[in-house]
Amino acid sequence: MDKISGGLENVRGFTFSAIKCGIRYSDRIDYSLILSDSLCNAVGVFTTNKITAAPVKLCRERINNKIKAILINSTNANACTGHEGLQNAKGLTEDIAKRIGVSPESVLMASTGIIGRQLPYEKMLSSHDELIANLDRNNGQAMARAIMTTDTIPKEVAASFTVNGEKFYIAGIAKGAGMIAPNMATLLSFILTDAPIEKNYLDYTFRKFIKKTFNSITIDGDMSTNDSAIILSPDFPSPFKEDQLADFEEALLFVLDSLAQLIVYDAEGATKSVKIRTIGAATDDDADKIARAVSQSLLVKTAIFGNDPNWGRIVCAAGYSGADINESTLSVYVEDIPLFVKGSPTEQDLKELESVLKRRNYTITIDVGLGNGESIMWTSDLSFDYVKINAEYST
Amino acid sequence: MDKISGGLENVRGFTFSAIKCGIRYSDRIDYSLILSDSLCNAVGVFTTNKITAAPVKLCRERINNKIKAILINSTNANACTGHEGLQNAKGLTEDIAKRIGVSPESVLMASTGIIGRQLPYEKMLSSHDELIANLDRNNGQAMARAIMTTDTIPKEVAASFTVNGEKFYIAGIAKGAGMIAPNMATLLSFILTDAPIEKNYLDYTFRKFIKKTFNSITIDGDMSTNDSAIILSPDFPSPFKEDQLADFEEALLFVLDSLAQLIVYDAEGATKSVKIRTIGAATDDDADKIARAVSQSLLVKTAIFGNDPNWGRIVCAAGYSGADINESTLSVYVEDIPLFVKGSPTEQDLKELESVLKRRNYTITIDVGLGNGESIMWTSDLSFDYVKINAEYST
Repeated sequence: MDKISGGLENVRGFTFSAIKCGIRYSDRIDYSLILSDSLCNAVGVFTTNKITAAPVKLCRERINNKIKAILINSTNANACTGHEGLQNAKGLTEDIAKRIGVSPESVLMASTGIIGRQLPYEKMLSSHDELIANLDRNNGQAMARAIMTTDTIPKEVAASFTVNGEKFYIAGIAKGAGMIAPNMATLLSFILTDAPIEKNYLDYTFRKFIKKTFNSITIDGDMSTNDSAIILSPDFPSPFKEDQLADFEEALLFVLDSLAQLIVYDAEGATKSVKIRTIGAATDDDADKIARAVSQSLLVKTAIFGNDPNWGRIVCAAGYSGADINESTLSVYVEDIPLFVKGSPTEQDLKELESVLKRRNYTITIDVGLGNGESIMWTSDLSFDYVKINAEYST
Repeated sequence: MDKISGGLENVRGFTFSAIKCGIRYSDRIDYSLILSDSLCNAVGVFTTNKITAAPVKLCRERINNKIKAILINSTNANACTGHEGLQNAKGLTEDIAKRIGVSPESVLMASTGIIGRQLPYEKMLSSHDELIANLDRNNGQAMARAIMTTDTIPKEVAASFTVNGEKFYIAGIAKGAGMIAPNMATLLSFILTDAPIEKNYLDYTFRKFIKKTFNSITIDGDMSTNDSAIILSPDFPSPFKEDQLADFEEALLFVLDSLAQLIVYDAEGATKSVKIRTIGAATDDDADKIARAVSQSLLVKTAIFGNDPNWGRIVCAAGYSGADINESTLSVYVEDIPLFVKGSPTEQDLKELESVLKRRNYTITIDVGLGNGESIMWTSDLSFDYVKINAEYST
């Protein structure tokens, strides 16, 4: 595979529209549409929160149909809006379906923004003329911007790959910034490819890679009501055998991983993105517990913000993670600098250590010393600005 | 029972000493001793972290002996200090035991402070003359000060109670401030009574009340390596039957509950302490899961800091708590003002709501609407100062 510049506009067979509808604010691009030329196989991974937004309920009903379009709004989550909220999502997608000449069952919807407000249904409906009129393949980056809320940069990634000698494209966009927990960590992400991929295989591969990417990042441990990651691939008879799809897999993983990294990089108020690598755990499951506990510890995250080599807080979080752990076999490293080796603190060159801790990216390794279990998580630091952003976000 | 002023000095049969030893800083009261005139029954509840400090290991070995003294230091946790750390704790308690004429098995130790540094053993040993010389019943409040780290106020509570017509005293001290998770939430707490209480009953009652008090508060969700709550009662044959101890139980619960409240009140950087009350859950266990998830959500805690009636974040945290929950039966109140009733947002008088949210203390009630399960947790808000304190705490 090859990384390429730009985003969704690289993928053949799709057009995009992103407009200012005025859903919550008067001057923001907040309403957008992804339209496929042909019907698509779709796979969606949604929040595991038991309170789900209306668009998530609608997607769960429709995701196994052939999909033609995804309607997306920002600034209003359409969550905790009851029967009326679900009817609004249905009504809006029905109108789009009529305009593009497909069954409503072929149109998905995703929303992000404030919880507990009804969508301005009539206003949105009356913007559909403009939304459809603006559809254009070159609006790829506008899509990445349209789904932002507290994000500071649009997140788009694209790659080309080869299957059986033929060149294809894959690209994705995502929004993150806050309410990012290590289960379905993205708020919204949409991945498109022009390669026709058989549905069961697409489902298996997408879920497997989501686990390694979006589900391995944490910002604040809060799991949203709206988390949705959806992939579309044209529903043509797939000419490819699974053993020809290595380059597709590599490209899909690259796109998901890059988007996940961008989300951590752009975490609310973050000044750092740090890889938490656990090795030597009794099992992979234990490694995962440790990586998650360390990644989510407020004391670890504030220490990262303060450039403080506080391995005590890392050991402490590992200790309460629930994993098997033994002080006398446990070691902690920042990059390759040992801070704590098999139960004993080390003497470090503080200058060298400080220069690593001041970097924007580095790796903390926790070697449990009990087995071969491994796990990787990505976390951000907890800064003044995280508090500021989330205390001042007004209901 | 009656609440009385002051702290440990109210309890007959104990003396206290608190001195400046210079363990980490030159001018701080950092080393202290509780001495009982007679041997005591002791119950200890310790951290469930798998990485435990040396003094916790020592206490777990000795807690079922008859106890005469507790040696306490602040500014150094003696955690992650391996064999040497445990030997230091043993050596220091042995020297104290020799000086007060008991077996080392009758002396407990507790430490709080930075993780991963060896105690200055010789310096501490050479201060034992002064430590013993200063023992005095009137040093109760000095004890409360000696165990502080980032606490801004000493925490001491006292009460008198009556058993079978006879008057007794109970008092406790605690330190908290940070690394406070909802399991053994205090870092250190010591409770003394002059009533002789039979050991098994003391054990049962103390653990039961710890669950309702120290284990029902959360500041940052981090569970320390040093958490220890210890109660001492003189080992005289107890003349009391269990049905005569209602006033003792009330006084013990009062002391533990008051200390827990003081810890939340004095949470690192906190401007609020908020009661999270869950009712109507399918089970008490489910109510507990919801109260904990809401109490620990960074988004809820920053909203509390920002005086923002963001019930969406509360509903969201309830949704990912793992408890049974149904949007259409769920309601959220601030004091008695409904924000969300059976799945629908309400219209609120924003002025009235704002006046409640600006208070230092208020109650958020989550009514799940599914059964009779109930739970209460206490949480603090997440402020700029929490980040500042924890980013600047230097390793």
